[in-house]
Amino acid sequence: MRVSQIGEFGLIDRLGRFQNLTARVIKGIGDDAAVLRYHVQRHQLLTTDMLVEGVHFLRSMPAEKIGRKALACSLSDIAAMGGVPTIAVVSLGIPKDLTVRYIDKMYAGMLRLARVFGVSLAGGDTVCSAKITINVALLGEVERTRLVCRDGARIGDEIFVSGPLGGSLKSGRHLTFTPRIREARFLVGHFKPTAMMDISDGLAGDLGHILKASGVGAVLMMNAIPVNHGVTLRQALTDGEDYELLFTLAKPVARRLQSRFPNKFFAIGEIVSKKDGLRLMDNVGKSQPLNLRSFAHF
Amino acid sequence: MRVSQIGEFGLIDRLGRFQNLTARVIKGIGDDAAVLRYHVQRHQLLTTDMLVEGVHFLRSMPAEKIGRKALACSLSDIAAMGGVPTIAVVSLGIPKDLTVRYIDKMYAGMLRLARVFGVSLAGGDTVCSAKITINVALLGEVERTRLVCRDGARIGDEIFVSGPLGGSLKSGRHLTFTPRIREARFLVGHFKPTAMMDISDGLAGDLGHILKASGVGAVLMMNAIPVNHGVTLRQALTDGEDYELLFTLAKPVARRLQSRFPNKFFAIGEIVSKKDGLRLMDNVGKSQPLNLRSFAHF
Repeated sequence: MRVSQIGEFGLIDRLGRFQNLTARVIKGIGDDAAVLRYHVQRHQLLTTDMLVEGVHFLRSMPAEKIGRKALACSLSDIAAMGGVPTIAVVSLGIPKDLTVRYIDKMYAGMLRLARVFGVSLAGGDTVCSAKITINVALLGEVERTRLVCRDGARIGDEIFVSGPLGGSLKSGRHLTFTPRIREARFLVGHFKPTAMMDISDGLAGDLGHILKASGVGAVLMMNAIPVNHGVTLRQALTDGEDYELLFTLAKPVARRLQSRFPNKFFAIGEIVSKKDGLRLMDNVGKSQPLNLRSFAHF
Repeated sequence: MRVSQIGEFGLIDRLGRFQNLTARVIKGIGDDAAVLRYHVQRHQLLTTDMLVEGVHFLRSMPAEKIGRKALACSLSDIAAMGGVPTIAVVSLGIPKDLTVRYIDKMYAGMLRLARVFGVSLAGGDTVCSAKITINVALLGEVERTRLVCRDGARIGDEIFVSGPLGGSLKSGRHLTFTPRIREARFLVGHFKPTAMMDISDGLAGDLGHILKASGVGAVLMMNAIPVNHGVTLRQALTDGEDYELLFTLAKPVARRLQSRFPNKFFAIGEIVSKKDGLRLMDNVGKSQPLNLRSFAHF
């Protein structure tokens, strides 16, 4: 069987078998970052993201933005856990004919974003490869009481996103998005989401991960989903690389968030029983199962 | 200017400019792993290594061994700092036509080695790529008093390697080597090397890193360098991927190590003044400058 037949999510499920968890690992495969025992009051977070030329970016795109994106994707993973990023190491696969100037620019883009979030770039690895390949491994920290995983959504919780969705690849936003570290820290400090992740593979598919991990279902309200300019609802549901936060809040907390920050976070639906699966409700209150393929790199 | 013109080492020197070190980082670029402030008695270590099909391995090689090698290279970096490896996250770039069976085997090889050294595989990333690409980011720990870096070699120190050198790629040993975690832990616990690293790019080139970091020179004794079966001295000096330890000891400590473990570690030379550079001494006591290009992936 080829990878293309089981897909990225099938593969991730499968690779869960190859964990070898010791007492220091609180969470391994299956969330945005690994959660590691660290300190009596804080956990450590560790995430790794690989970007490949021709898949996640093209060589003709500005090198600064490519470097920036590589770090931004990892920062988004730490945000999704409610954490603060601390230290990154970078592996770079470089074609022989790439100019030093191009590499300098990639690093400069990475460094600029690292400074914004107080992250150290502390070394790495450079190897030869046919396609530009960037891997960022990023450490972070989160207070034990503020850690948010994918498995805490409960029936009755409201579902939110941190911004409009869709069209990220077409608009170029996938190269310039701001990882939602500040928004996530604000949320975990004041509103304690029950579950959270970043939307990298499309709302429908990524919400599916929260539902599966939490053992629940969801109803999304068609007319409540914020959609980027020039983007269809279907694209907002399935386009990849939005890197907005997707999170759930208990109802009283949800009402508090909405009354205080009505234009910053968007309530898009509700957590329901697992047997209802994932449904989309239209403007007149009729709902039907949502079976869209999400954005797949394979 | 192309990458091929400045080479891997030139590039690493250059990228040192793009660090952004915060108080938590004790050492960034320029050693085998980053050293991070962690605990009153222990530092944390973080390393990242990327392996690319066609450069570090061929797809026709056994998949278990490829997976094993990817982790072993990172383990070797932690060994080089005197540390104990703890937790790894793995990014995998996978061609669409690769079989799931092949990927399973790569992970199985990685997992088997992880178990030997008590390392957790705690998740990662899978993406699509034209060539199989494996990045292992590995955390480790080391007691503050046992940390060994590249910059501590002093004039008069003796230079050691942990095993015979050369021919690793040709013999297939680069796929099956045992990372020298146990040897390194033994050394830092009982003999406190003044400087240490692993030999990944060839003895001559890698010793050059210790000399540069420590501001010293060295004389290697031609007839003392342990050479693998069927390998020339030149190959032992320049072949890549040996993954033996290269370390320096103060003279009294060196004598103690040699009298107790005469066949386990090999004294191959002595640290001298920086102005003497790196020299090779022949059997009759005549020395000349050693100017060999080390193994270069670019």
